Amino acid sequence: MQLGIIGLGRMGANITRRLGRAGHQCVVYDRNTDAVRALAGEGARAAPSLEDVVGTLEAPRAVWVMLPAGEATEGTIQRLGEVMTAGDIVIDGGNTFYKDDIRRAAALKPKGIRYVDVGTSGGVWGLERGYCLMIGGEKQAVEHLDPIFAALAPGQGSIERTPGRDDRDPRPEKGYLHAGPVGSGHFVKMVHNGIEYGLMQAYAEGFDILKSRAAETLPEDERYELDLADIAEVWRRGSVVSSWLLDLSAMALAEDEALSGFSGAVSDSGEGRWTVMAAIEEEVPAEVLSAALYARFRSRKEHTFAERLLSAMRFKFGGHVERPSGG
Amino acid sequence: MQLGIIGLGRMGANITRRLGRAGHQCVVYDRNTDAVRALAGEGARAAPSLEDVVGTLEAPRAVWVMLPAGEATEGTIQRLGEVMTAGDIVIDGGNTFYKDDIRRAAALKPKGIRYVDVGTSGGVWGLERGYCLMIGGEKQAVEHLDPIFAALAPGQGSIERTPGRDDRDPRPEKGYLHAGPVGSGHFVKMVHNGIEYGLMQAYAEGFDILKSRAAETLPEDERYELDLADIAEVWRRGSVVSSWLLDLSAMALAEDEALSGFSGAVSDSGEGRWTVMAAIEEEVPAEVLSAALYARFRSRKEHTFAERLLSAMRFKFGGHVERPSGG
Amino acid sequence: MQLGIIGLGRMGANITRRLGRAGHQCVVYDRNTDAVRALAGEGARAAPSLEDVVGTLEAPRAVWVMLPAGEATEGTIQRLGEVMTAGDIVIDGGNTFYKDDIRRAAALKPKGIRYVDVGTSGGVWGLERGYCLMIGGEKQAVEHLDPIFAALAPGQGSIERTPGRDDRDPRPEKGYLHAGPVGSGHFVKMVHNGIEYGLMQAYAEGFDILKSRAAETLPEDERYELDLADIAEVWRRGSVVSSWLLDLSAMALAEDEALSGFSGAVSDSGEGRWTVMAAIEEEVPAEVLSAALYARFRSRKEHTFAERLLSAMRFKFGGHVERPSGG
Amino acid sequence: MQLGIIGLGRMGANITRRLGRAGHQCVVYDRNTDAVRALAGEGARAAPSLEDVVGTLEAPRAVWVMLPAGEATEGTIQRLGEVMTAGDIVIDGGNTFYKDDIRRAAALKPKGIRYVDVGTSGGVWGLERGYCLMIGGEKQAVEHLDPIFAALAPGQGSIERTPGRDDRDPRPEKGYLHAGPVGSGHFVKMVHNGIEYGLMQAYAEGFDILKSRAAETLPEDERYELDLADIAEVWRRGSVVSSWLLDLSAMALAEDEALSGFSGAVSDSGEGRWTVMAAIEEEVPAEVLSAALYARFRSRKEHTFAERLLSAMRFKFGGHVERPSGG
Repeated sequence: MQLGIIGLGRMGANITRRLGRAGHQCVVYDRNTDAVRALAGEGARAAPSLEDVVGTLEAPRAVWVMLPAGEATEGTIQRLGEVMTAGDIVIDGGNTFYKDDIRRAAALKPKGIRYVDVGTSGGVWGLERGYCLMIGGEKQAVEHLDPIFAALAPGQGSIERTPGRDDRDPRPEKGYLHAGPVGSGHFVKMVHNGIEYGLMQAYAEGFDILKSRAAETLPEDERYELDLADIAEVWRRGSVVSSWLLDLSAMALAEDEALSGFSGAVSDSGEGRWTVMAAIEEEVPAEVLSAALYARFRSRKEHTFAERLLSAMRFKFGGHVERPSGG
Repeated sequence: MQLGIIGLGRMGANITRRLGRAGHQCVVYDRNTDAVRALAGEGARAAPSLEDVVGTLEAPRAVWVMLPAGEATEGTIQRLGEVMTAGDIVIDGGNTFYKDDIRRAAALKPKGIRYVDVGTSGGVWGLERGYCLMIGGEKQAVEHLDPIFAALAPGQGSIERTPGRDDRDPRPEKGYLHAGPVGSGHFVKMVHNGIEYGLMQAYAEGFDILKSRAAETLPEDERYELDLADIAEVWRRGSVVSSWLLDLSAMALAEDEALSGFSGAVSDSGEGRWTVMAAIEEEVPAEVLSAALYARFRSRKEHTFAERLLSAMRFKFGGHVERPSGG
Repeated sequence: MQLGIIGLGRMGANITRRLGRAGHQCVVYDRNTDAVRALAGEGARAAPSLEDVVGTLEAPRAVWVMLPAGEATEGTIQRLGEVMTAGDIVIDGGNTFYKDDIRRAAALKPKGIRYVDVGTSGGVWGLERGYCLMIGGEKQAVEHLDPIFAALAPGQGSIERTPGRDDRDPRPEKGYLHAGPVGSGHFVKMVHNGIEYGLMQAYAEGFDILKSRAAETLPEDERYELDLADIAEVWRRGSVVSSWLLDLSAMALAEDEALSGFSGAVSDSGEGRWTVMAAIEEEVPAEVLSAALYARFRSRKEHTFAERLLSAMRFKFGGHVERPSGG
Repeated sequence: MQLGIIGLGRMGANITRRLGRAGHQCVVYDRNTDAVRALAGEGARAAPSLEDVVGTLEAPRAVWVMLPAGEATEGTIQRLGEVMTAGDIVIDGGNTFYKDDIRRAAALKPKGIRYVDVGTSGGVWGLERGYCLMIGGEKQAVEHLDPIFAALAPGQGSIERTPGRDDRDPRPEKGYLHAGPVGSGHFVKMVHNGIEYGLMQAYAEGFDILKSRAAETLPEDERYELDLADIAEVWRRGSVVSSWLLDLSAMALAEDEALSGFSGAVSDSGEGRWTVMAAIEEEVPAEVLSAALYARFRSRKEHTFAERLLSAMRFKFGGHVERPSGG
């Protein structure tokens, strides 16, 4: 089927490619004309403007917006609201805050424009592996887009089936899910990323404990020089902690066990923060997900003001002078 | 090859079975004579006592002890030390604290008895999937036992190879690892379990946030009734959080999304605790692994004394009277 | 000076009393006519309605709203905005979210009505000890109200002076602070409460560790039956952890060391949650303040869904069956 | 009464001075002869060796060891055990691990030498304010030393009495506590320090949130430039968070609100670590005390290996390249 795509960054471009391979016709636009030209060379239809994307598609039109969450997405969806007509569908495939979805869908509703939010996981691997899609919106709109979702998702593949699913919705087994009303797709994707932070931090702490076992401050017979690449590898097979994130860790450690090319200043996107805020709204204790988020905040600072105040208090009560850090 | 096995609980019994299927000869003993008889019926050679296990094996003997960590293992290894002779090998396959391994190996050394510690992951799935083995001990002893380890481990299977491992030790790709000197096998297994707690808690918090999104205290348009079984399923395919623990969660949720058969009073074994203690010894921040441990402690209590003191302080400064819990 | 007071709950009533003792004239209103009558009997001037409070005061009028944060305060300030005139001052002394202050002040500004937010700490002790006040708003409005703030605050008292403050604003030494523009008073009070949760949790955990040292699972010579009331008492004198919260803990423990009258289901108000959200907005790691909040969430539940999922995963990989809790 | 004192660092020297002022006769020794000479000039009796301390005192002798925990204390107590006789008392006033107390007391018992452990809080303020003392050991030995403890403790002073203590042990109100058998004094002091870390971290995070409210990444009308010295000051009066640590923070902030002289690399002593380990042994959730400890670990590192692994994983799944930190 036809689909407009606005935003041809890495994610948008690969989504276009994966849809093209599946025989769908994509009409694409990006401010960056080089990006448009590249995909036109691969079979997509180039549009010189957002308005042109809408003008080219046949009604009911569907336009997938794949832009950074925030202003870029907000402005684009507003403009789409101006040029689209009743029955058309706006799809937000970015990392949007679910409360923004709810607000935008309500703003488009009077004009009869439908809004579908799609949380998209898969990163640089998605083009080949397929994207895991978490979708929110009205049933009819979501079903109308089914061919698109089916093409983007990984499909059943060789992953073993979970017992007891015969009478259930088959879509999750193919890698896409209609989670519920507007916003629920991004909500589920948000929690996915919150969990992702927690999982990553669990591995990170564990490997740090393994690596630090060689510390000279430990008694000599309790000191081990462990091969982290081999440990990651062996855990991939038959252990309880096997996972895709472990597979990736094993790759990184096999390349360079010291990980010396990585700064350790770890970014975080909105989803980890929103997950913690959602937990607080719901009164759910989320100790691990919060700790994982804070570890990233801390990783980007040389020292916090909090730490200086600790030093100051220690000096005041005990005369302790802290030595400068960086050792 | 020949192997003595002492301790025929579920793990010991399944290890015996998996070795038997691979053509190894197991001489088995357990205080529980029914357990011995059952395995004898499946081809193992029954021994009426620990001493008899040792007497039956040809030198250099190897005896795998598969008993609960602590007194049971301690006593058994002491008795083996009395009846074994130079060149023999004691294998501790249980969940022993690595500092106990170091102490025991040192005690056996004067007599020339070798000590190998094997952290064994795999649970009830190990018989079929194979066990992930993390091994500590002297090179020669570990290499002598290689046929045993190779038979117990899962082997390479269909799991994709990690790039860049061609010049590395091939054993981790087959699911077993010689980690280093005595104690290092259990140390690596200990951290494995520490990570396991962290991963489990990350999923648990995330699914709790999803489930609690239906709470009536939330604004109506931000409330979702999410299908947790379908979410777990879709994340198995192409998402960043796919893992074996997620596979198991998907199974449990597909059976009963409310998990009403589970109490929520979660046990912990020694490894999670020791991991945190090791982190502290090494001065490694281990926020997530600690939080996961504490969540289990808390899960087993109705109320902590800490909480009562919080209530008492609130009453003293603000006159706040807390209502009884349990709602 | 004259002051209108709307909301005669415990806090509003005691503020009225403390102002009355200092010679200020309070015009009071509450939906609950008994509360109004009681204060009228103590010298305040009763008003039968909000409009009557405003009608009775001379311009520029100042009305202190002391109602629960949320709808009650919102509605009252809207109505005040309708009946007050340019130059008048609305004071919100409740536990309002600082972003609501900013929004409300902006809504009142076109009419020339000024908005002052006052974070008020002191609880049931405030009437006698005085209230610690954290004030946000325009300089002129705050200075106009100085006699009110000075009367409510504790004053310098017998607390030792901090060295080096001679050239600084004298108000903080008297117990009240003009923190900055609108919202900053409640922001500072919010963080005050966030810290309060952290401090309380630190004591709570510490006393729990002391109490649990009598556990029979510990080796006998490492078991102590400690007298918590005496420990709290001794720490009040010369230790690093002396504080007002410790004074209160010492009182509670001296009354009943088992704290058996307290449920341990600990409430939390908005401020602790907003503090964590503010930390996240600012990318400040706030591990301790978050953990203190989550401990309260957890204290109000019998079991979390997270815990049931942990049990379910353990059962799936290891066949572990958790025993019901409450032992 | 007479007391031997070994170890004349700042703590030992000030203890000698405070005892001297109270009329007690101290026989002092330190490897550093300058330290000995200085105190001799202030009225203490100098001893050229440990043996000489013991030789000078009249039986039953009491010797207070005030040395760094670990080897220095261990060796000194062993030597005292050799030269002291039945009925003599060894006092360990340092920061010893309580399990070491238990072991040492057991080693001295056969010779009839008594062992008393004293956790001592007060830091550089102790000479004038007095020391808060937490004491473990046999009743008779502790009572024999009562004049020493009474002289070192702050006494009742001007601190308000806790209601309901009339029928209780009067010593805690004077600032010293007989906590229980050997080791319990150091155990209580250990938890005191654990709590201290938690309290400090709560303030530190709170002030960081206040300071970071000026961040340019925030919306302009939600940004505040707060005066931290004034905030600390106002909280000293009538607020719930008033404490001695807050008094010290107010001092430090009044001197330099930016705390620019402090590195922020925060040391930790054994007690914070042992407190967390004790919590784990007792199965007490100690989230806040652990987080406070980990914040210190982290403060002393430029980057953790954990953080580099997070960066590596992010690169592997998303192609994210982290920018170097320190911005």
